[in-house]
Amino acid sequence: MTEKRLDVLCIGNAIVDVLCQVDEDFVEEQGLLKGSMQLIDESRSHELYESMGPATEVSGGSGANTAAGIASLGGRVGFIGKVRDDQLGEVFTHDIRSAGVRYTTDAATAGPSTARCLVLVTPDAQRTMSTYLGISAALTPDDIDESAVAAASITYCEGYLWDAPHAKAAIRKAMEVAAGNGGRVAFTLSDGFCVDRHRAEFLDLAENHVDILFGNEAEITSLYEVDTFDEAMQFVRGHCEVACLTRSEHGSVIISGDEVHVIDASPPVEVLDTTGAGDLYAAGLLYGVTSGFDLATAGRIASIAAAEVIDHIGARPRVSLAELVRARL
Amino acid sequence: MTEKRLDVLCIGNAIVDVLCQVDEDFVEEQGLLKGSMQLIDESRSHELYESMGPATEVSGGSGANTAAGIASLGGRVGFIGKVRDDQLGEVFTHDIRSAGVRYTTDAATAGPSTARCLVLVTPDAQRTMSTYLGISAALTPDDIDESAVAAASITYCEGYLWDAPHAKAAIRKAMEVAAGNGGRVAFTLSDGFCVDRHRAEFLDLAENHVDILFGNEAEITSLYEVDTFDEAMQFVRGHCEVACLTRSEHGSVIISGDEVHVIDASPPVEVLDTTGAGDLYAAGLLYGVTSGFDLATAGRIASIAAAEVIDHIGARPRVSLAELVRARL
Repeated sequence: MTEKRLDVLCIGNAIVDVLCQVDEDFVEEQGLLKGSMQLIDESRSHELYESMGPATEVSGGSGANTAAGIASLGGRVGFIGKVRDDQLGEVFTHDIRSAGVRYTTDAATAGPSTARCLVLVTPDAQRTMSTYLGISAALTPDDIDESAVAAASITYCEGYLWDAPHAKAAIRKAMEVAAGNGGRVAFTLSDGFCVDRHRAEFLDLAENHVDILFGNEAEITSLYEVDTFDEAMQFVRGHCEVACLTRSEHGSVIISGDEVHVIDASPPVEVLDTTGAGDLYAAGLLYGVTSGFDLATAGRIASIAAAEVIDHIGARPRVSLAELVRARL
Repeated sequence: MTEKRLDVLCIGNAIVDVLCQVDEDFVEEQGLLKGSMQLIDESRSHELYESMGPATEVSGGSGANTAAGIASLGGRVGFIGKVRDDQLGEVFTHDIRSAGVRYTTDAATAGPSTARCLVLVTPDAQRTMSTYLGISAALTPDDIDESAVAAASITYCEGYLWDAPHAKAAIRKAMEVAAGNGGRVAFTLSDGFCVDRHRAEFLDLAENHVDILFGNEAEITSLYEVDTFDEAMQFVRGHCEVACLTRSEHGSVIISGDEVHVIDASPPVEVLDTTGAGDLYAAGLLYGVTSGFDLATAGRIASIAAAEVIDHIGARPRVSLAELVRARL
């Protein structure tokens, strides 16, 4: 295998987050389930936005946050995802490129607007997300830059993309190209409800197509329809080369064949907004693995990256993660 | 005089701020003067944006920040300023309305895009601003809602609007309507360089049209072309009914005829970003005056409001200023 030009290529929804701090009552009044992500259409997105207080716009998207995290750690990383040629598309493109991520997917010149995610942050630092996918759902196999996939050591895809039929086809193509070029495939289950919507396909992916799987406790127990974390862990063990199971403040468990690592969470300075914790955990793990660290060390890098992103509002790192890892590892 | 429906009507540029934390070298490399506001055209705005790191979008505009502050204090406040019917215009409109400000200026359906201000925040918490005025500069006398002006106890205008020829005519109209309906006119000098560009007109305004004048040390000494704050203070004394002169951490001086108050700055929790300090000072003062407080008390409310906005990134209050004033006054 020749040396790869990219450590990681991330594929995900290209989303601008609209962040608003709210109280618990507001989440309930809006009929939302705290801590989850739900998809909404354009008219509901306008309605919910109208009812929200003043907000802050900042680039997001799960896979894009992971890409920004890998760049901040010093990794060579690309991103594939779809924006419109509108102002929020310009914001997304600027932010990801200036973070050091190679992003070249063409902006659509027609169709729905750039995706936005209305993120309600409650005082307990939980985020409740309502996503209008807009043009992001129109990612097609043609948007998959085969040479970029072939050039990446790992191709990492969001489970969220399964909510968009065309995007799903795009991911399947990317996974094939990666496998055909000696690259590895990583995948995140994204969200418990997302797992519910696509369980059969996600099980097939985990068993047959994914080398490195990411999921939190809710997602992995939903995937195998079991009650306890431990049961899910026994199932996943035979399915993926590596499974990284996150448990918020209880840390994470990394499993690879007979190798099992229980990694402590890295203590954050303050917990202000948990948005992006899972995305940055994945960034640290993928950076660690592609940089030649063993799984336990990669897990500690992942914990450091996740702790950084939850001590401020927003889902992308605010300081150099490379420096943070140098100081803390 | 009948009771007024609005405490304050603010007129200013409708701007979305694009905030980015940078080091001192970046400001110098870009040929910018730290702490100042400069106007830039669209192509320069794209060029500067390209060279900036990942950013956060949040509604701004000096007069609009003041309006949001007055609403947060519990005042009845309106805003007049121009956006395009684009995504940043939607963001501006949402944020100011959801802050509790009455904002009804029609969005333009053609012409340049919504104004943006590229704000570079250095580690010393100073902000260096590059503003592309876009459609905001197209505010015309037709956009001045005469009934709103007539209904306001105080009509407050930004000096920055003088950089836009049509907007200047709009402000002159608003000042006439206010004066003709028993309202008072307040005005901020906005920026030292802005004063340089329009000194003769600003002197005429201060002497003949403005009842309540706001300016910081740089602005007021520039207005009278004197070297010391004290000299400027003697000049302004005869010109306006009330002059509020701010001096950053040294507090402020409020002058009204023979009445002179020296107000201490309110200590901020932390100084992270001084953007909006002057805007929120004006909010506190105008709220105080229209709520029947004496000038010294209004000055203390102004200091409390200014201290709140500098302890976080962004130029609008993050907590209820009404509660803060109740706790601290």
